[in-house]
Amino acid sequence: MASYHAKVFIKLKQGILDPQGKAVENALSSLGFSGMSNVRVGKLIELQVQDADVVAAERSVKNACDKLLANPNIESYNFELSLSDEMK
Amino acid sequence: MASYHAKVFIKLKQGILDPQGKAVENALSSLGFSGMSNVRVGKLIELQVQDADVVAAERSVKNACDKLLANPNIESYNFELSLSDEMK
Repeated sequence: MASYHAKVFIKLKQGILDPQGKAVENALSSLGFSGMSNVRVGKLIELQVQDADVVAAERSVKNACDKLLANPNIESYNFELSLSDEMK
Repeated sequence: MASYHAKVFIKLKQGILDPQGKAVENALSSLGFSGMSNVRVGKLIELQVQDADVVAAERSVKNACDKLLANPNIESYNFELSLSDEMK
């Protein structure tokens, strides 16, 4: 049994309107940040995964993304796994 | 003038309660993902920055984080900059 730290990055797919990103972009512009554009707001989900090995951990995290964390209609995801000595 | 792609990662500071993370953790557990714990939900903000050089771009993004993107009381942030040929 090993413990992994997973970082899951969830983004809106290209072409999907991002009102939150637009709001941030407007706020940046109001604050004088003139050179900033194309703001997109996504999610960063971090978790600990306990599994037999990295292959099993990868499968678990992929399943969790497909079944809960990401909305496959409008979001895409990718993730990183790193071995962690933190057993909880 | 150069164009950079910035990825800003915003996390709740350690010790700050994360109800959204807790909700995700409970949902994962209900779905049978037994080995997952310590779920923390943060933000991933991506944007294009136009600035004179990478030093200026770094300063701009840091300012944007301090003044708008992150809440310094409860959140910490870090970011990556990469040179982009996408000029918009």
